[in-house]
Amino acid sequence: MFDCGEGTQIQMINYKIRRSRVNHIFISHLHGDHYFGLIGLINSFALLGRVQPLHVYGHAALKELIDFQFRLSDTQLPFQLVFHSFEKAGIVLEAKTYTVEIFPTRHRISCYGFIVREKKNLRRINIEETKKREIPFTAFAKLQAGEDYVELNGTIIRNNVLTVENDKPKTYVFCADTIFDEQLAPVIKDADILYHETTYPHTHLQKAAERFHSTTKQAAVIAKLSNAKKLLIGHFSAKYDELGIFEQETREVFPNTELALEGVTYLI
Amino acid sequence: MFDCGEGTQIQMINYKIRRSRVNHIFISHLHGDHYFGLIGLINSFALLGRVQPLHVYGHAALKELIDFQFRLSDTQLPFQLVFHSFEKAGIVLEAKTYTVEIFPTRHRISCYGFIVREKKNLRRINIEETKKREIPFTAFAKLQAGEDYVELNGTIIRNNVLTVENDKPKTYVFCADTIFDEQLAPVIKDADILYHETTYPHTHLQKAAERFHSTTKQAAVIAKLSNAKKLLIGHFSAKYDELGIFEQETREVFPNTELALEGVTYLI
Repeated sequence: MFDCGEGTQIQMINYKIRRSRVNHIFISHLHGDHYFGLIGLINSFALLGRVQPLHVYGHAALKELIDFQFRLSDTQLPFQLVFHSFEKAGIVLEAKTYTVEIFPTRHRISCYGFIVREKKNLRRINIEETKKREIPFTAFAKLQAGEDYVELNGTIIRNNVLTVENDKPKTYVFCADTIFDEQLAPVIKDADILYHETTYPHTHLQKAAERFHSTTKQAAVIAKLSNAKKLLIGHFSAKYDELGIFEQETREVFPNTELALEGVTYLI
Repeated sequence: MFDCGEGTQIQMINYKIRRSRVNHIFISHLHGDHYFGLIGLINSFALLGRVQPLHVYGHAALKELIDFQFRLSDTQLPFQLVFHSFEKAGIVLEAKTYTVEIFPTRHRISCYGFIVREKKNLRRINIEETKKREIPFTAFAKLQAGEDYVELNGTIIRNNVLTVENDKPKTYVFCADTIFDEQLAPVIKDADILYHETTYPHTHLQKAAERFHSTTKQAAVIAKLSNAKKLLIGHFSAKYDELGIFEQETREVFPNTELALEGVTYLI
């Protein structure tokens, strides 16, 4: 989970997303709209009797704040809360099939964005060929890893005869809150989906800069420069009920743009 | 406002309760379900450009927590936040037409309940009589306060000729979270509406005591002992989707009981 504003757990219930599926929560920065729902979610995990560890990643002060609140309420968590403080850019989570990497963005307070990279996918077994040549299952792991197969008589069967290339690993980038910053482009390059904030329409260029936020066209320029396949925009100023202007302005510069809307799933 | 759980401000928007009407917020104790929505509400006040002061009443540590969070987000509130720490039982707010008094309840951590007492209502002017006797408007304030009227010739007109008694001042008691405690009864006596928690049906008597909460029948006994006119019950354990059992059990002991339901207004 990336960021956790007030009421996140309530919306998860509304959208039937099982809270127990969440094991890693990343908090980009300590402005309230990005973390005020975290303490309540953790509290609910305690009430629901969670046992599996929960990993929280964020600014070191967030740990202090969590500890302070549970001390006040005299709460002992029934599970392990493992806190990972942000210290420098780089990989903070290495899971079996993906990594999560953090990078600093330029905001009013310390803020980090996140890159989720799928690990290189294993090659896919060509079942027909392996059957035909009677290759034993026990050899599959090595085949998937790209090795050739050596028969008992010493004959080498090339890997690409027995396997096919798998889908390209995907990359998702969550840019958090940031002022327009061209230097982000090389850091976040080649995302399959790039989420970039567009707090304001482009007419509010000046205000965006003052508040360390971005406009529609600025997000689109970052998407272009970073060679994103698709751009997802969000964090719209609460002043706007009608989001058409955000979609339209951004698409003028980067056509493959979608609004990040509550309750919608976007496939990468 | 008494207590402020997560998402309170979101529900206020849903129920069209103007957040700007809130000037005094009382937090009974520092368990999350009673205060996790406070910081978000204050944050929204800041974003909405509130200027009038906001008074928050609670455990001294709550002030530390608020300050800590706004320090982290580098937020300067555009209004004055006046914090009133709970120190001992007694009146904490003396407004023009009512007072708010706090009293300790017995819970797992320090916890206070609240009594809102309307001030004694002024007597109501009998317009017909004052017209007939040509009593000047300038004398009305004294008449409302109960004084007799003295004519220029020295004749005394008794107050009860010129005024009528007003409605009796009302009292609302919010008992917060508490274990069953008969000693509360004299403290909260004669409430027009008594809110008392019923976390559990009466079958869970033991569990209620262990967790410093009350059952249905225990709340009803307190209502009876304290001579409440009406009992409002709430804080039902999340284990129960169906609240009929709470209503039924409580009414067996105290018939004039209602469930405190979200979004419902109860007239005092």
